[in-house]
Amino acid sequence: MSPAVAVNKGAATRESVVGHALSIALTDGFEGLTIGNVAQSVGMSKSGVFAHFGSREDLQLAVLDAAAQRFTDNVFMPAMREKRGLPRLRAIMRHWVIWMRNEGCPMVSAAVEYDDRPGPIRDRVVEYQTRLRRELARAVQMAIDTGELKDDCDPQQLAFEIFAVELALHHDSRLFKRNDSMVRAERSMQRLLDSYRS
Amino acid sequence: MSPAVAVNKGAATRESVVGHALSIALTDGFEGLTIGNVAQSVGMSKSGVFAHFGSREDLQLAVLDAAAQRFTDNVFMPAMREKRGLPRLRAIMRHWVIWMRNEGCPMVSAAVEYDDRPGPIRDRVVEYQTRLRRELARAVQMAIDTGELKDDCDPQQLAFEIFAVELALHHDSRLFKRNDSMVRAERSMQRLLDSYRS
Repeated sequence: MSPAVAVNKGAATRESVVGHALSIALTDGFEGLTIGNVAQSVGMSKSGVFAHFGSREDLQLAVLDAAAQRFTDNVFMPAMREKRGLPRLRAIMRHWVIWMRNEGCPMVSAAVEYDDRPGPIRDRVVEYQTRLRRELARAVQMAIDTGELKDDCDPQQLAFEIFAVELALHHDSRLFKRNDSMVRAERSMQRLLDSYRS
Repeated sequence: MSPAVAVNKGAATRESVVGHALSIALTDGFEGLTIGNVAQSVGMSKSGVFAHFGSREDLQLAVLDAAAQRFTDNVFMPAMREKRGLPRLRAIMRHWVIWMRNEGCPMVSAAVEYDDRPGPIRDRVVEYQTRLRRELARAVQMAIDTGELKDDCDPQQLAFEIFAVELALHHDSRLFKRNDSMVRAERSMQRLLDSYRS
């Protein structure tokens, strides 16, 4: 095998391991992620997994990074194709509702699991959640700048309220397995935007 | 020791064990609850804890019951002293915000940890969360009946939206350790009620 092929193969294996680990984190949480059960799920030896991730924590951090990347790809990137302002904000909200309903968000699980446990995982979750809220507030600010939302709309406040609806959607669709939770979330989003429309 | 004293002592010990277990669940989650670490925290032997709870799952269920009872005592009971209708609904929302900010809610953690894991713990969480949403919708319905909220207000929808704000408050106050999250939550609650006022 040439060095380039070996590097590609290594990257592909790493990606496959992270993909399996992401699925485990979604059902069993981040505390349910161990080198052992990921190895079993992907059909590798534990030492094989260790060759890619030096520790359980490294693996957990890689899963967080992968989850954040998937969220960006599925929610923010498609919205970038929409016009700045309300159309883009609406697109973020729409894609986010679909993401929560279909995928469930491992970051929500990680936030609850690590909110009281200082360390690198908690720091990474805080970093991603801070960035998400900042990007969301920025999208709100653009809709204020275009005159589509009221001047006195507080972008951080509306970002908090949008996030709140997403959390409740995550909760209801996963815990109650209710099909109407997406409709509820969309109605809430519509009410929210209406109350801030100029 | 007379039998009555023995029973009381047993109940007091059980209560003390559950109290320590509740604290552990708040920081480490329900998966972090083991007979071993609860025994250590309360200063008992593992067999001493086993004498009160036949299994780890029994202990986890007892902690869920205790958390639900504390929530009722701190949020719903004080609100019962308020007049039916908007005053009572407002009181529930106010006490709930204080509860989330001060205590944090182990039920939120349990919901995230067990939403995808069938079994008695998940069933108990679903039961409590269903009851909570029903009581909340009932309080909303009373405020519609008194004419304080609009006739076309959907009680289940507003209950979903109130719950959403509570989840976001839980998230922000515990993850970001931000002092302004309670103010944000109260502003959201006020906006919500205003948008449904008749």
